Amino acid sequence: MTNTLLKKIPSQKRSQKTLERIFQAAQTVLADQGFKAFTIRNIASQANIGAASIYDYFPNKQALLIGFCQERLQRKLEIFHTHLLGDNLSRPANETLPEYYQALRQSGLMSKLDLELRHARNQDPALKAAITEFENNLLECLCTFLRHHATHIPEGEMKAWAKYMLNLDYAAMQIKHGANEHEMQVYSKLQMETSLAILRLAGIDIAPPVLE
Amino acid sequence: MTNTLLKKIPSQKRSQKTLERIFQAAQTVLADQGFKAFTIRNIASQANIGAASIYDYFPNKQALLIGFCQERLQRKLEIFHTHLLGDNLSRPANETLPEYYQALRQSGLMSKLDLELRHARNQDPALKAAITEFENNLLECLCTFLRHHATHIPEGEMKAWAKYMLNLDYAAMQIKHGANEHEMQVYSKLQMETSLAILRLAGIDIAPPVLE
Repeated sequence: MTNTLLKKIPSQKRSQKTLERIFQAAQTVLADQGFKAFTIRNIASQANIGAASIYDYFPNKQALLIGFCQERLQRKLEIFHTHLLGDNLSRPANETLPEYYQALRQSGLMSKLDLELRHARNQDPALKAAITEFENNLLECLCTFLRHHATHIPEGEMKAWAKYMLNLDYAAMQIKHGANEHEMQVYSKLQMETSLAILRLAGIDIAPPVLE
Repeated sequence: MTNTLLKKIPSQKRSQKTLERIFQAAQTVLADQGFKAFTIRNIASQANIGAASIYDYFPNKQALLIGFCQERLQRKLEIFHTHLLGDNLSRPANETLPEYYQALRQSGLMSKLDLELRHARNQDPALKAAITEFENNLLECLCTFLRHHATHIPEGEMKAWAKYMLNLDYAAMQIKHGANEHEMQVYSKLQMETSLAILRLAGIDIAPPVLE
């Protein structure tokens, strides 16, 4: 993981564990109490460690937020690699894509929190700059996937298609947040159909929509 | 316009003009300088009137923000009525929908500002409560349109489809913001195709996608 704001390189197992604990606490604080509660003091308390242990790694809360976002994007990237690239690149997209989305959901990487982080990124140029490399890596991965599966996308449009598709995922998170159970069922169906429509437009061989 | 936070009812032409001027200034301040600059003082200065003139209508900046959002939603509602309901309800949807979107864009009602306002609404329960009636009216209008044109949507799912469609419009605004000219072309094509896919899924008679 490239993390230029990390003061201490966690080479030992124990350090790595502390870092994981800090990120886990940061996630809990953000998800439960929102951005206003994102302070070193709150996160240390949630992690049940001293604030000094956090300052060992991060000089301030901005650096911690950046580290947190980078780690989150890195995990997304690894899930993408595992499910859609490597050996799985040669499998049919309509088999691997649902597995990928399931893995994302199970890892809690498609949640209200990600919407909040995205808004924070749009408002904060320093945060945006610090995660650009990770975002570009994710885009590149999606382009690799599309190059293999999609026959209708001109190379010059590849990156724009990839960005559009990632954006649709955020839109789906947005509408699902705060929905009731009945709405969730309809939204999930429509989200699936929207994704399929775009994939078919890209020339990916995906079964046509079936409405039950 | 139902606006419970308006202190003064602008019955006279002159009052109505002042109110329009305040809303126009509020829009300029928000679009150019963002939420941090949304103060009575800045908006009065932008409108070239005294702050007291604003306080004649709104007791504080929260009330002004609510009035501003209500007026904006009311204008959206009127554009929806004009282009998609009334006499235009019986015209084919693939003629009237593009006219509706063009009118929205020309009125500046599909912009970065609307994304900001949507985020503000999600963060601020008082704002959300104050514009719920307007949002529900918009949803009802879309349901009326869908009931007439869409043959595949069960009545019990109508409102969820309408919400999903409105959300796709926000997603389109999101991706277009900050895009370069080449990306804009690709996004516009993909946005159109996404909308068409959902409309076809709803049973609305729309021509199939054509990629040039």
